[in-house]
Amino acid sequence: MPSNRKIYLAGPEVFLPDARAIGLRKKILCEEFGFVGLYPLDNELAAAPGETLDEKIFSANVALMREADAGVFNLTPFRGVGADPGTAFELGFFAALGKPVFAYTNDAASLFDRVAAAHGVHAAPEGDYCDAQGLSIENFGNADNLMLDGALKALGRRVIRPDVTLPGCGDLAGFMACLRQARTHFGI
Amino acid sequence: MPSNRKIYLAGPEVFLPDARAIGLRKKILCEEFGFVGLYPLDNELAAAPGETLDEKIFSANVALMREADAGVFNLTPFRGVGADPGTAFELGFFAALGKPVFAYTNDAASLFDRVAAAHGVHAAPEGDYCDAQGLSIENFGNADNLMLDGALKALGRRVIRPDVTLPGCGDLAGFMACLRQARTHFGI
Repeated sequence: MPSNRKIYLAGPEVFLPDARAIGLRKKILCEEFGFVGLYPLDNELAAAPGETLDEKIFSANVALMREADAGVFNLTPFRGVGADPGTAFELGFFAALGKPVFAYTNDAASLFDRVAAAHGVHAAPEGDYCDAQGLSIENFGNADNLMLDGALKALGRRVIRPDVTLPGCGDLAGFMACLRQARTHFGI
Repeated sequence: MPSNRKIYLAGPEVFLPDARAIGLRKKILCEEFGFVGLYPLDNELAAAPGETLDEKIFSANVALMREADAGVFNLTPFRGVGADPGTAFELGFFAALGKPVFAYTNDAASLFDRVAAAHGVHAAPEGDYCDAQGLSIENFGNADNLMLDGALKALGRRVIRPDVTLPGCGDLAGFMACLRQARTHFGI
C-alpha cells in the first residue's frame, strides 16, 4: 500500500558516472517500500535569466527538501575521510526543520579509524588524539563528525553501517535498511 | 555601540591545538564589531546519565544555533578538498531556519581546481569534467559544493576568499570581512 510519503534521496552518488541509474534504483526501491523518492537529478533544469545553473540546482534541491516528508542520507566518504559536504549540508537542513532523517554509510569503519589510517594518529593531552598535523580526531566511534551522527542519535537512531559487497555507493543494503526504519517511523 | 546580536562561530578550528585561543580571538572581534560571538567550545559539558559526550555536544551546539541571530562559517578545507562536514551540516541548519549566513575560506582556489590538483581531471561528455576515479567535478567556480555556495548566493552574497598571509585557519581577514557584511545586514 503506497503511503505517498516523499523521501529526499541525498548522497554523493550524484557525482558517479551512473548517477541516474543509481537514482532510478533508489526510486524503485522507495516505491517497493511504499514511498515516493525525490532524487536531485530528477529536476529538469535550465538557468533562468540572471540565474546561474548552480543557483538553479540549489533552489530546486531546497524546494525538494521542503517538499519531502523525510530524508535518507548516504554518508559514505567522498574524496577523503568524511561525508560529502553537500550531503552534510542537506542533513543539517532536515535536522533544523525537524523532519525525520535516516542515514547509512558503505564504509563500516569509524571516522576515527579512517582519519588514523589516512592522516596518522598520536595521543594528545587529556586522553584526546590528534592526527599527524596535530588536528584533533573525534573519538566517539561515530561514522562521521558528531553533528552528523548526532542528528540520528537525537532521534534514537544510528548511522547504519552494513556489511557491503560492492565498494563505493553501489551497494544499497544500507539504503534499504533506512527505508525499513522509515516504514516503522511512519507506521506503514 | 553593541547590538547584542548573537553570531554562531562555525568552522574546523575547533579541531586545532589552539582551538580555544582562536575562538577567543573571534569572540573579541565580534565584540569589536558590536556582536556577541557564540563559540561551540564555550559550552561547559558533562554528559548526563544516559547521554554520551558527543550527544551532549550535539545538543549544546544545536541550542547555540537556535539561539544565534546569524552564523559565520569558516569553509576552509579540512582534511581534504572540501569543507568540514560538521561545518557544512551547520550551514544547512542555518539555511533551513532562514537565518542570515556569512562565510569565508582561507583557500582562495575553487573546488574545481582543488579536486583537479588532488584527484586529477579529465574531460567527460556534455562539457563536464571528472576526476581520475570518474567522479564528476562541479565546475561553477565555487569555493565548495554548490549547496554551500548556494546558501550564500541565495542571500545575494558569496563565500569570501581573501588573500591570506597565514596558512590554515589562523588568518581572520575573511572572518572580519564576514563581520562587516553582518553589520551591513543588521544595519549597525
